[in-house]
Amino acid sequence: MRAILVILILCSVFVSASASEPRPLSLMPMPAEVQTKTGQLLIDTSFTVGISGHSDLQLQRAVERFLDNLRRQTGMPPLDMKVTDAAQAKLVVHSEHASKAAQELGEDESYSLEVSPSGAKLDAATPLGIMRGLETFLQLVQTTSDGFAVPAIAIRDQPRFPWRGLMIDVGRHFIPLDVLKRNLDGMAAVKLNVFHWHLSENQGFRIESKKFPKLQEMGSDGLYYTQDEVRDLIAYAHDRGIRVVPEFDMPGHSTAWFIGYPELASGPGPYQIERKWGVFDPAMDPTRERTYKFLDGFIGEMSQLFPDQYFHIGGDEVNGKQWDANPNIQAFMRAHGLKTNQDLQAYFNTRVQKIVSKHGKTMVGWDEILRPDLPKDIVVQSWRGQDSLAAAAKQGYRGILSFGYYVDLMWPASRHYAVDPVSDAAANLSPDEKKLILGGEACMWSEYVSPENIDSRIWPRTAAIAERLWSPQNVTEVNSMYQRLAEVSRRLDWLGLTHNASYGPMLRRIAGSNDISALRTFTDVVEPVKDYSREELAVVEATSLSPLNRVIDAARPESATVRHFASLVDALIAGHADSEVEQEIKALLMLWRDNQSNLQVLEGQSFLLKEIVPLSQDLTAVATTGMQALSYMERGEHAPAAWATEQFAVLEEAQKPKAQLLLMVVPSLQKLVEASSGQKAPPPPPEK
Amino acid sequence: MRAILVILILCSVFVSASASEPRPLSLMPMPAEVQTKTGQLLIDTSFTVGISGHSDLQLQRAVERFLDNLRRQTGMPPLDMKVTDAAQAKLVVHSEHASKAAQELGEDESYSLEVSPSGAKLDAATPLGIMRGLETFLQLVQTTSDGFAVPAIAIRDQPRFPWRGLMIDVGRHFIPLDVLKRNLDGMAAVKLNVFHWHLSENQGFRIESKKFPKLQEMGSDGLYYTQDEVRDLIAYAHDRGIRVVPEFDMPGHSTAWFIGYPELASGPGPYQIERKWGVFDPAMDPTRERTYKFLDGFIGEMSQLFPDQYFHIGGDEVNGKQWDANPNIQAFMRAHGLKTNQDLQAYFNTRVQKIVSKHGKTMVGWDEILRPDLPKDIVVQSWRGQDSLAAAAKQGYRGILSFGYYVDLMWPASRHYAVDPVSDAAANLSPDEKKLILGGEACMWSEYVSPENIDSRIWPRTAAIAERLWSPQNVTEVNSMYQRLAEVSRRLDWLGLTHNASYGPMLRRIAGSNDISALRTFTDVVEPVKDYSREELAVVEATSLSPLNRVIDAARPESATVRHFASLVDALIAGHADSEVEQEIKALLMLWRDNQSNLQVLEGQSFLLKEIVPLSQDLTAVATTGMQALSYMERGEHAPAAWATEQFAVLEEAQKPKAQLLLMVVPSLQKLVEASSGQKAPPPPPEK
Repeated sequence: MRAILVILILCSVFVSASASEPRPLSLMPMPAEVQTKTGQLLIDTSFTVGISGHSDLQLQRAVERFLDNLRRQTGMPPLDMKVTDAAQAKLVVHSEHASKAAQELGEDESYSLEVSPSGAKLDAATPLGIMRGLETFLQLVQTTSDGFAVPAIAIRDQPRFPWRGLMIDVGRHFIPLDVLKRNLDGMAAVKLNVFHWHLSENQGFRIESKKFPKLQEMGSDGLYYTQDEVRDLIAYAHDRGIRVVPEFDMPGHSTAWFIGYPELASGPGPYQIERKWGVFDPAMDPTRERTYKFLDGFIGEMSQLFPDQYFHIGGDEVNGKQWDANPNIQAFMRAHGLKTNQDLQAYFNTRVQKIVSKHGKTMVGWDEILRPDLPKDIVVQSWRGQDSLAAAAKQGYRGILSFGYYVDLMWPASRHYAVDPVSDAAANLSPDEKKLILGGEACMWSEYVSPENIDSRIWPRTAAIAERLWSPQNVTEVNSMYQRLAEVSRRLDWLGLTHNASYGPMLRRIAGSNDISALRTFTDVVEPVKDYSREELAVVEATSLSPLNRVIDAARPESATVRHFASLVDALIAGHADSEVEQEIKALLMLWRDNQSNLQVLEGQSFLLKEIVPLSQDLTAVATTGMQALSYMERGEHAPAAWATEQFAVLEEAQKPKAQLLLMVVPSLQKLVEASSGQKAPPPPPEK
Repeated sequence: MRAILVILILCSVFVSASASEPRPLSLMPMPAEVQTKTGQLLIDTSFTVGISGHSDLQLQRAVERFLDNLRRQTGMPPLDMKVTDAAQAKLVVHSEHASKAAQELGEDESYSLEVSPSGAKLDAATPLGIMRGLETFLQLVQTTSDGFAVPAIAIRDQPRFPWRGLMIDVGRHFIPLDVLKRNLDGMAAVKLNVFHWHLSENQGFRIESKKFPKLQEMGSDGLYYTQDEVRDLIAYAHDRGIRVVPEFDMPGHSTAWFIGYPELASGPGPYQIERKWGVFDPAMDPTRERTYKFLDGFIGEMSQLFPDQYFHIGGDEVNGKQWDANPNIQAFMRAHGLKTNQDLQAYFNTRVQKIVSKHGKTMVGWDEILRPDLPKDIVVQSWRGQDSLAAAAKQGYRGILSFGYYVDLMWPASRHYAVDPVSDAAANLSPDEKKLILGGEACMWSEYVSPENIDSRIWPRTAAIAERLWSPQNVTEVNSMYQRLAEVSRRLDWLGLTHNASYGPMLRRIAGSNDISALRTFTDVVEPVKDYSREELAVVEATSLSPLNRVIDAARPESATVRHFASLVDALIAGHADSEVEQEIKALLMLWRDNQSNLQVLEGQSFLLKEIVPLSQDLTAVATTGMQALSYMERGEHAPAAWATEQFAVLEEAQKPKAQLLLMVVPSLQKLVEASSGQKAPPPPPEK
């Protein structure tokens, strides 16, 4: 029944509700139930908020933050828009009771929001639900012909999954606290509720240990968070309804531990901070008691610092080479009947789980930790997929999905959006087994991010993942998603996120000039290569010391220009295009065709531009192809087969990655050649 | 002799030094002596800095900050570009000795910088000079075909004036500490050395007094700086070679004091925080001893907090109405032979000066304080002009110029740039008298600024004022200034200044849409009305509670688009234009002509767009005029006189401010009509 209601409502939201209210709502994630009504509530300097029912500091800060954001969005001065008595307030916020002191998995986040032309009411069980509802309210604020306003509306909303996370890897590249904070603001804006903090890696140990200070002193290049900073970040997150789950990856991914404490390792050492990327040999020695004594001390210290119930021990990608090479470890395995390295790691996990549990925490780990001898309260985070989650659930283990949500792989938002935690094998689970699937996490692995470009890798695409994890399963319309994603992206600008703001300055640096129009035209139609092709296509091996100042580092993971162009071409080919569409296609093709000659002016003055010349020449070539195809179509002529064959070769060449970039307009141009000639493009070469 | 050298050098800098080094340097302020050489020093990840000679924490922090900025400019990771032994360093920094613990007026800021392809050396007497030289080095870094590089060069540099300031009024609108800090970064980048902090106004008392807490508690709406924050800001400024001079305006501009302490005032009260703009009646009572007792306590407290030698007491714009209306004050004046309110204020100033002096400080005040009975060590800040400065100098008083440097008046940079402290009457002073002119200060009065748009009112134009105050007097070439100003403006982006970054988000808010191309096209060619016309042209009186979210608040004080268009038109009329120039003029005119029809799409959805419709229609009209003129010129025809008369009327209408905005393309279009018709435009209506 609810599913049908949602569908009906979605239609009304997007078709447009009334004459006075013509614009679509840009809610993201889409609430569970939305009913638009007639009229709107004006938001002017007299706007006020009142708290009725339960009140506490967390709630009051949430309301103040809401007002700050509302002022920022509307440009109102700090003296306007006050908190007042609930009796007089334009927006009345009513929370039944307090949230938990340490936010818990599965805490009630539901809320209901009623807006009429005379006022608004936001109800929730706890401040957590109020926070979610306040974000919805902010997304509803529009500039209208009468002033800023929120349309009259009734919303009932709750999340589909209780665990909706973003992981940031601060090990491979250190990410400063202020960058994390603005990303927490972004998370709160799209109702994500778990910040998974990947704190240790081969390339860096990023947190202060008072018990084992050589961890950060020798393992971080000085780039780590003090415990005061960690507490500050946890409080910041808690104020935004976000849990903080720390991860300390073990027994692998742990070189940085061994520089200060080589006795933890399975090989002789000495160790250095790893500068390269990949999977490396060093691993903890699971056979010595002093390893567990150390971990007991360390996990105990960290369990005190992090209030969250969950504690992530990583557990992924141990290549086993150090274990194979160590005769003591081999002897231990024989003595204990451990046949494989997987068995040894399972032994290690069992021991570590007992330590985690002793300190009052519940263990989380990546797929590899799953072995039947672990207790059922652990949580498996799957980078392998829904089938792996389903297998875990069938054994009674809870899981969260990260397969399909790796934002470092430069996928389009639509591809992440299509990944549902309860699909594939998981779709066939029993209702009770399905409940074991807690949600998912977007993952920002940080080989190629700096404070300057990390936001552009996380946002706005992570908002699409947030919608997948919050909204009803049947909210899947891709065009609607993209339309709302564009709005959300710009709203995130107000929070200080730099995914849009950093583009221009990075291009100006590359150009060595303030005139970046040609470089921008080029960079607007390329994307970084996908998946792990950046490594495969590297001319010089990248390390943690490589500057991230190339076109690939500035280029957006997903080009809005290309998506727009593709929709124009599709309309043209489908015969839906009016002359304006045709004109726009032609204007874009002309711009691209002539761009290389404009870019040439800059080339001589920047070493960072040299590598893009071949692809920029390809852009000229394929745009020329497109214009020829268009001109055949305009004249109503069939393009000759020989011409088509020639153009397909041009396009095939242009589709090859260059400078680790992909020219994303090629598929649409291929369609144009096909449409103009009636010829079919040759099949793409098989993927490696 | 030096003057001639400088001129020769400037020519070589701008004409271009060698084939391998074709781009002009974007130094601002222009150093006293610049000699370009052959080759360049590459700046890559192996770049290092070493400190030889004197070293202290201030200097070390300056070097670290320099490296941070260099990394940001070049996109290098935090582990590169280290501080090393001077013997191995690429850039060797050598300071003779320490700077003063509290920075002093006239401290040596000179430096010399030698860059060769193998390394660079920066010498100065103190860390203060080193800081200035490091900023020059940062400005020299360019993207080249070989990598980031600094051209080989020899620079000897020192400031022309020792007092080069920026005043920010935080009274009328409170400006948060982080906004001030980023503006201090901007100041340091262009070698300004005095932050004049205008801390109290009718509209707000912005600093915590522990002695008189009702000042901030009742006079600030809660918007004030704690003493810890003040100390933090002073330390931040000191680290950047910037003195902090506090101003507490008295006896006028002081309503905010009287809310907590009405007994200080000359009228009965009660008082409220003033919300309107202008000059108001409330003034301190100069006839009561308890006024001076209070000021002794307050100035004593503030003198402890602010280490700078100088203490600004304001002293401007007392309208005297409260004094006239108070019989006790009138009786006091008669008893003491004080004939005018000016006499009474002089009496007040003399008393206050003794208090300031007692607490070890030197008094600064606006023009009005200048009366012969004040001691010669005071400093007069002139908002009235160079003649007033000259008069003071002739009496032996030191002065700083702010007349001509009010950045809130929305003048073009060239107009500020043309104002020299030693001109007009001051040009005729004796050399010794000229030395009394200490420099100048840009003034940011804050009736119409918020944290969102204040940077765009200060920058980049203040960099032109900074050059006026630092560089040799004969550095006056306006085109060169604008060229370098554009570069500096973009470099300031790296420091987090938002003068460029806030434009797009403000326009998106106004449009209520992400598609702002039409609104941007419009806003790019308008400027806010100049001087004090914003008040005069207001439909609704503005107050400190008015939202600053209109087009006038987003529009730039000076339009680069219009300046560019004017140069194209001038070239065309002078017969220097090639066909590309003509094409560009035509393309711009077409864009403007068609813009209103694009803007119309947005109009219906935003109340903030309604007011610009008439001016947007004017833009269409004048662009149409321009296209007609161009077409007469192209055809080699003389445009008919009747047509010209009609067009002059169109242009005259378009020149009238609307929505407190000026359409800045009109003068160039007038020139086109004149050139095409041979008719002269009627003289502009007389200014009010």
